[in-house]
Amino acid sequence: MYSRLLGKIYQFRLMTTLFVTVFIILFSSVSNAEDPLPSWNDGPAKKSIIEFVTEVTKEGGPNYVPLEDRIATFDQDGTTWVSHPIYAQAVFILHRIKELAPQHPEWKDKDPYKSVIAGDKEAMAKFSESDWEELLAATHAGMSTEDFQEIVKKWISTSRDPRWKKPYTELVYQPMIEVMNYFRANGFRTYFVTGGGQEFVRVYSEDVYGIPPEQVVGSSILTKYEYRDGKPVLLREPKVFFVDDKVGKPVGINLFIGKRPYAAFGNSTGDQQMLEWTQAGDGKRLMMLVYHDDKEREYAYGPAGGLPDTHIGAFTQALMDEAKKNGWVVISMKNDWKQIFSFDE
Amino acid sequence: MYSRLLGKIYQFRLMTTLFVTVFIILFSSVSNAEDPLPSWNDGPAKKSIIEFVTEVTKEGGPNYVPLEDRIATFDQDGTTWVSHPIYAQAVFILHRIKELAPQHPEWKDKDPYKSVIAGDKEAMAKFSESDWEELLAATHAGMSTEDFQEIVKKWISTSRDPRWKKPYTELVYQPMIEVMNYFRANGFRTYFVTGGGQEFVRVYSEDVYGIPPEQVVGSSILTKYEYRDGKPVLLREPKVFFVDDKVGKPVGINLFIGKRPYAAFGNSTGDQQMLEWTQAGDGKRLMMLVYHDDKEREYAYGPAGGLPDTHIGAFTQALMDEAKKNGWVVISMKNDWKQIFSFDE
Repeated sequence: MYSRLLGKIYQFRLMTTLFVTVFIILFSSVSNAEDPLPSWNDGPAKKSIIEFVTEVTKEGGPNYVPLEDRIATFDQDGTTWVSHPIYAQAVFILHRIKELAPQHPEWKDKDPYKSVIAGDKEAMAKFSESDWEELLAATHAGMSTEDFQEIVKKWISTSRDPRWKKPYTELVYQPMIEVMNYFRANGFRTYFVTGGGQEFVRVYSEDVYGIPPEQVVGSSILTKYEYRDGKPVLLREPKVFFVDDKVGKPVGINLFIGKRPYAAFGNSTGDQQMLEWTQAGDGKRLMMLVYHDDKEREYAYGPAGGLPDTHIGAFTQALMDEAKKNGWVVISMKNDWKQIFSFDE
Repeated sequence: MYSRLLGKIYQFRLMTTLFVTVFIILFSSVSNAEDPLPSWNDGPAKKSIIEFVTEVTKEGGPNYVPLEDRIATFDQDGTTWVSHPIYAQAVFILHRIKELAPQHPEWKDKDPYKSVIAGDKEAMAKFSESDWEELLAATHAGMSTEDFQEIVKKWISTSRDPRWKKPYTELVYQPMIEVMNYFRANGFRTYFVTGGGQEFVRVYSEDVYGIPPEQVVGSSILTKYEYRDGKPVLLREPKVFFVDDKVGKPVGINLFIGKRPYAAFGNSTGDQQMLEWTQAGDGKRLMMLVYHDDKEREYAYGPAGGLPDTHIGAFTQALMDEAKKNGWVVISMKNDWKQIFSFDE
């Protein structure tokens, strides 16, 4: 009896020791595995993100930011997904023009429609801003907001980009998805502040990026409240309401959020004012620019040379100088990102 | 030994029974005390709120609404605080005109300023919309957003209404505060959708109503991104950007939230389209109108008679007919509210 009891006690102590040991091993391995940014190479960019989040979430620390003020803003095109050689939304516009052409026989002889229908890439490369505005009006207006979102939803699920032959929603940068998740895990609300169409981006932003419709700040056209068959609809009108680009970004941030971001991510001159506005706040702030210098895995443009920068907001040498002067962190896609897309090895 | 052990066991069982009994008493008294709307009298209005919240939060139920879609929108003036005889923001405008008058000697001979400076109530009652717009521009523009909010903050903390001699921020309806808290406790996000100035309301909305700046949808003027002493500021310009009233409310809801509310609260024709828009969604929705029929404790206006309805958005007979036709719930301040202000007995 006594020896069996002793045996039991011994067994119990052994089990306890084993349990504690396993627990310690598990715990420390979890700690080691807890890299929130596994697609990032070690370097100044990754370090600055982790340092920033650590500091602003440290209760009692000099740079602590209360939960309700933890706002991080992200540009979309070129910052969280591929925007070269043209924005996905521009691809959508061109696709819709071709799709709508049979209902508009007059377009065959009228620019800018003519060039789009003929697929004249040279002419399209020379489109002015007012050409694009005309195409935007022809494809983004004249229907209810709900109908528009259905059209976008259908297009985004069926279209494929010419280089990777994948849906545009798969051409998102895995390192930036990790940054968004990391920020959210630390109490930040992540907002898109995009020059792109607000209603366009809202269609997929939650599924693809985890950003809900109410956290998408973007460009918009006027909508008009009307009744159709006795039911109210918001009709999209062919008139620009708000341009969320360049100086429009701080304006949009103030209008939609009413709080200054603590962190802002961009990639072009269209984001410069957003970064300035972020930096002008008190305390620790994080300003970062994605720099496209990886011609093998994605593209190299701007001062990185290579391809011409064909889209409106560009990473110019002036922006690079501004980044240096202000201490904004430039993310080299080539050096800072171990992996670019989720489908990469 | 044995009897002591038995005694201990008995004592233990007694204590357990006592503990369980106390627990049951406590628990049931908590249950009884758990009325989420103690300032409401029992009646159809209170019942409709509780039924709505119960149904949309019942998992697996036919009207269940997922957490991310739980949006409730509230008008402010006349719905959550006193707006009679004029809006608090209008009082602020008149106050600022008098305060700024010494810097504008030309105002003494120029309407609408002249009447404001002279305190000519008869003339002020006849101000046109363009008179008010001129006064708005003179008091709401020409400074940075931050400076404007400082001015409002100072005014709101020092001004007193003439009837109750209290800060305007205390003239909030306790029953509506309870509704907001009740909705939030059930996973709803509560938004203001107000014809009032967005930047004005943001100054106190979080402290007074628990609604943070990013959940205030309101009217706004243009802002311009500029540099002052090398620092970026958003300068308020004397030009209306967005009017969040009447048809502007559904437009604003779509623009700022991008989701249709499941519940909407208003009190005037300015809210009619917001309620229509809410009701036009699928599933169970709640549309309510605060009806000012309590001339003793607050005011009686609109079809309730008594005082003339001097503000722009009115509770007209047509709105009452619309409410009946559509099944919107009319809240009688007199009958449905046990208590109106937190400072009432």
